[in-house]
Amino acid sequence: MIDWIAFDADDTLWRNEEYYLEGREQFFKILTKYGLDPEDIHQFDRFEVENIQYFGYGAMSFILSMIELAIEITEERIRPGDIQQIIQLGKKMLTHEVILFQGVGSLLETLSSVCPLMLITKGDLFHQQRKFKASGLGGYFKALEVVSEKNPEVYAEILQRHGIQPDRFLMIGNSLRSDILPVLELGGWALHLVAHPTWSHEDDPLAESTPDRYLEVESIPGVHACLIGAGLLQG
Amino acid sequence: MIDWIAFDADDTLWRNEEYYLEGREQFFKILTKYGLDPEDIHQFDRFEVENIQYFGYGAMSFILSMIELAIEITEERIRPGDIQQIIQLGKKMLTHEVILFQGVGSLLETLSSVCPLMLITKGDLFHQQRKFKASGLGGYFKALEVVSEKNPEVYAEILQRHGIQPDRFLMIGNSLRSDILPVLELGGWALHLVAHPTWSHEDDPLAESTPDRYLEVESIPGVHACLIGAGLLQG
Repeated sequence: MIDWIAFDADDTLWRNEEYYLEGREQFFKILTKYGLDPEDIHQFDRFEVENIQYFGYGAMSFILSMIELAIEITEERIRPGDIQQIIQLGKKMLTHEVILFQGVGSLLETLSSVCPLMLITKGDLFHQQRKFKASGLGGYFKALEVVSEKNPEVYAEILQRHGIQPDRFLMIGNSLRSDILPVLELGGWALHLVAHPTWSHEDDPLAESTPDRYLEVESIPGVHACLIGAGLLQG
Repeated sequence: MIDWIAFDADDTLWRNEEYYLEGREQFFKILTKYGLDPEDIHQFDRFEVENIQYFGYGAMSFILSMIELAIEITEERIRPGDIQQIIQLGKKMLTHEVILFQGVGSLLETLSSVCPLMLITKGDLFHQQRKFKASGLGGYFKALEVVSEKNPEVYAEILQRHGIQPDRFLMIGNSLRSDILPVLELGGWALHLVAHPTWSHEDDPLAESTPDRYLEVESIPGVHACLIGAGLLQG
């Protein structure tokens, strides 16, 4: 019923958003030394989104956005030592350990015995590959696709390259904008992990009526039963 | 005689190193305002190489290394406005126009009519994809591989995925370390563009005797005749 199952990585298989939130908290702590109001600091998202055009998505873009914002918002009063602190924060984010969500190992073991699995992840190539290696999950996946954007064109290119019909393809992820909507648009299946954390920029709303081939569960331990219930896997 | 021809991108098909050198010159100009001796500034390479473990290769790693070096070498005297200047330098590097080396278009047109071409390039995914798109060369290539490292394992994985025998594979590039030596090690063919600029970190020496399957020409206009001369293409 399905020829390939693809997974998103960050915040789908392993924890990610919490490291950004923690980095951001520590960044705010640095800035409050300059008498800044946390309200002002919240233009952070704007900086980050504007910088995507230069730096793409990922931790390096996040670090550079923090530095730019810190300089602007302190009106150039920020001390170089604090900028160095921000870079250290970033290096910590780039090398944190990879912590899998509960049930990921057994789910991948089950699914990989039924059909080939693919990982489709967005961000810094080097960082994503490092996490993939550190996750220990490599053996379950037949393909790893690191992409700089997740839109219908990018998914279509991946499906074409692997010779996959859209309606025989299932994507599982936490982000409506990146993992779910573009795949539905192509005519594929998409399973949304609704209780997994998601960066606010990734929070596109779903259409009012439930689209065809859209599935949702709270989290990883619900995935297998959901796929059987939808008739995509045999019970 | 050859099933696939692969090209490196930066400093092989289009100009790249000169933007780094220009960025570095402008960076040095900023630092000389702090009374620094250009000799000291030349520890730049050390910073950049040390940061590869965090940031990988590419322009964002270069920007972050400039910022770190500027803070350390000025003993935290650097003004935030100058750090902002460094980031602007970086953004310029990330968005410069793509200028092809002379003869690239006609070479690719000729070769792509004979066998499939692949681009294998190292660096920031987003930046490399942007340049690939801006180059207008997309139509000549059957595959684009952006990698975070170019070593024998990475090439072996690419060859395996595309079902290519190493001795039926030719790589063309400017960097002995990244484009030539790992491919020769696998038993592939490699053509070195000796007169193209190369980052010093990429300058691994060739073994004393000329290895098997190693070819060299000055630059792009010599490639076609060289391949015919080596018997890899028909005249």
